[in-house]
Amino acid sequence: MAPILLNCMGNEHSDYIKQQVQVKNPYLDTMEEDILYHFSLGTKTHNLPEMFGDIKFVCVGGSPNRMKAFAQFIHQELKLPGNPEDLTDICEGTDRYCMYKVGPVLSISHGMGVPSISIMLHELIKLLHHAQCRDVVLFRLGTSGGVGLAPGTVVITDKAVDYSFLPQFEQVVLGKVITRSTELDEGVANELLQCSSELQNFPTVIGNTMCTHDFYEGQGRLDGALCSFSHEEKLEYLRKAYEAGVRNIEMESTVFAAMCRVCGLKAAVICVALLNRFDGDQITSPHDVLVEYQQRPQILVSHFIKKRLGQVV
Amino acid sequence: MAPILLNCMGNEHSDYIKQQVQVKNPYLDTMEEDILYHFSLGTKTHNLPEMFGDIKFVCVGGSPNRMKAFAQFIHQELKLPGNPEDLTDICEGTDRYCMYKVGPVLSISHGMGVPSISIMLHELIKLLHHAQCRDVVLFRLGTSGGVGLAPGTVVITDKAVDYSFLPQFEQVVLGKVITRSTELDEGVANELLQCSSELQNFPTVIGNTMCTHDFYEGQGRLDGALCSFSHEEKLEYLRKAYEAGVRNIEMESTVFAAMCRVCGLKAAVICVALLNRFDGDQITSPHDVLVEYQQRPQILVSHFIKKRLGQVV
Repeated sequence: MAPILLNCMGNEHSDYIKQQVQVKNPYLDTMEEDILYHFSLGTKTHNLPEMFGDIKFVCVGGSPNRMKAFAQFIHQELKLPGNPEDLTDICEGTDRYCMYKVGPVLSISHGMGVPSISIMLHELIKLLHHAQCRDVVLFRLGTSGGVGLAPGTVVITDKAVDYSFLPQFEQVVLGKVITRSTELDEGVANELLQCSSELQNFPTVIGNTMCTHDFYEGQGRLDGALCSFSHEEKLEYLRKAYEAGVRNIEMESTVFAAMCRVCGLKAAVICVALLNRFDGDQITSPHDVLVEYQQRPQILVSHFIKKRLGQVV
Repeated sequence: MAPILLNCMGNEHSDYIKQQVQVKNPYLDTMEEDILYHFSLGTKTHNLPEMFGDIKFVCVGGSPNRMKAFAQFIHQELKLPGNPEDLTDICEGTDRYCMYKVGPVLSISHGMGVPSISIMLHELIKLLHHAQCRDVVLFRLGTSGGVGLAPGTVVITDKAVDYSFLPQFEQVVLGKVITRSTELDEGVANELLQCSSELQNFPTVIGNTMCTHDFYEGQGRLDGALCSFSHEEKLEYLRKAYEAGVRNIEMESTVFAAMCRVCGLKAAVICVALLNRFDGDQITSPHDVLVEYQQRPQILVSHFIKKRLGQVV
C-alpha cells in the first residue's frame, strides 16, 4: 500500500502516515519484486521488514571505511552486546556501497558526488518503505572544505545551496530540468547544535553548505588538471559564497536534502571542514589530524542518538 | 616544464609535445608539492616518473572489484611474470579509488557518476603529467543500459551526449556554466570495432552514449523512490534517444570525453548493455550472466592492447 495513494484520506490517517517513510512512485507497489540492485538486496530474496523494520537513524557518508568505523563506534557507544569487530557488510554482494546495521542505526556509504548518493538514496528510501520503517531521521556525516572557518570546525547545514548560492537542486526528468527545494529540518539542526554545546572543545557552527559537482574547477581550486581562472578570481568567488552564508563546500548535500524533503524524511547534514579554503586548496594536515577531524561528525551524531534513546540525560 | 607554456614553440617541438600528457593549469608546475589527495599519492612522497613513467594504457571503470579483476586478467593476457593474485592496490592509503599497475597498463576505479570520475580524472591527468608519460590511450570500461540492443551487446561510443542528446558537457567554473565538447577519438573507436570483429561471438556496435546524472528519474526508470511520469512517456523519451543515435545510457562518459579532449588524450568508452531499456528497468539477469557480460569490455580492450604491443598479429 503506497502512502502516495492515501493522500486523500482524513487527518487522523495522515498523521499516522506522515511518520511512515513515503515513496513518491505509484508504480512501486504494483511490482511483483523490487531488486535494490546497488545494495544487492531484494523484496523476494530478503525479508526487509524483519531485517530493517526497527531502524530509526540512518547515517550516510562517502567513504566505506569511515562508515564501517562509525558503525563500530556507535556499537560501542550504545553498549550493544557482541563484538563491534564482527559487524558484517549487509551489501557484501556488491562493492558499490557498504551497509552496517547496529541496533536502530543503519550506517551506509554513498561514494562521492550527487549521482552516487542519489542512487543510494533511491534504494535506501525504497528499502525503508518496504521495511515499513517509521519516524526515521537521516544524517549525512561528511568532510568538506571550510569557507572562513578553522580546520576541524563542524558545520551543521542550515540550507544546502547550489553553485549560485540558491537553496535548490536541479533534477533532470526525461530530458526536462525541474527544481526541488533543499530545505532541511530546522528542529534537528538546532537539536544537533545543542548537542555540540554539551561536548567539550567542539567548535561547531550552523551555516549554509554549497554543493558542487566537482572538487576542482567548481570549487575554485587552483590545483586541478584544468584551471582557467586567477587566484584573485577564486578568492572573489569564495568571498561571495561567504557573504551568502556559505560556511563549507561539499558534493552531496543538495540532492540529499531535496530527496529527503520530497519523501517527508527529517534530515540533517553534518560535515567537518578539513581546511580553510581562503588559505589554500590542498589538504596538507597530517593523517592523524585528519582522522580526528573526521570523527567529529560521528561523535556529534552519536550524542544526538544517545539523547534520543534516553541514554544521555 | 608545463606543456601549456610551450604552445608558442615551432611545429617540430609541438609534434613532440603533443604526445606528452598535457595539463591545462599554469599554476601546477609552480607548486612545490602536489598532493593527489584522493589517490593518497604525492610528488614529494612518491617518485611518480619511476612508478608510472612507462604507462601507455589507462583503463578505468566504476567498480573497484571489477578493476582489480581486469588488472589480474590483463596480467595473464600479457603473460607477465609473477602471480596476478599478488597485485597490490597502489591507492591502499585511501578507499576513494583503487589502482593497479600491470606493465604498461594502469587499471583504476572511479565510482559512480560524473563528479566521482571527475575527481579521479583530475588527479590521474596530473599523475600522468608528473610522471612524464607519453602516447597514453585512455579507456572507460563500463556497464550501461542498452537502448534497443540485446543484453550483452558491447557499445563503443561514437559521441557521448547529454540528456538532450547533444555532444557536450556543462562544467561549472566559479559559478559560471561553460560547455565543453565530448568528441572522442574516431581512430581508436574504429580500431576497437575491428578488434571486436576478430573475436568470436562478440556482438558490438558503435553508437552514441547518453550520460545522465542519476540512475532513476534521469534515465526514465519507473522503479525509483520517485517517479512522476508514465510508462508511455518513458518509452517516448527512449524512442527519441534511439532516433538521436543513442544506443546505451550510463553516468560518466561526457566528462570523461570532455576532460580527455581538453588535455589532448586519446580516449574511448566501451560499455556492455546489461538490459534493453525498452523491455524494462530492473537488472534481473542471473549473477553469472552479468559477470560474463561485464568481462566483455575487458576482453575487447585486452585484445586492443595486445595488438598495439605486437602480441597479436
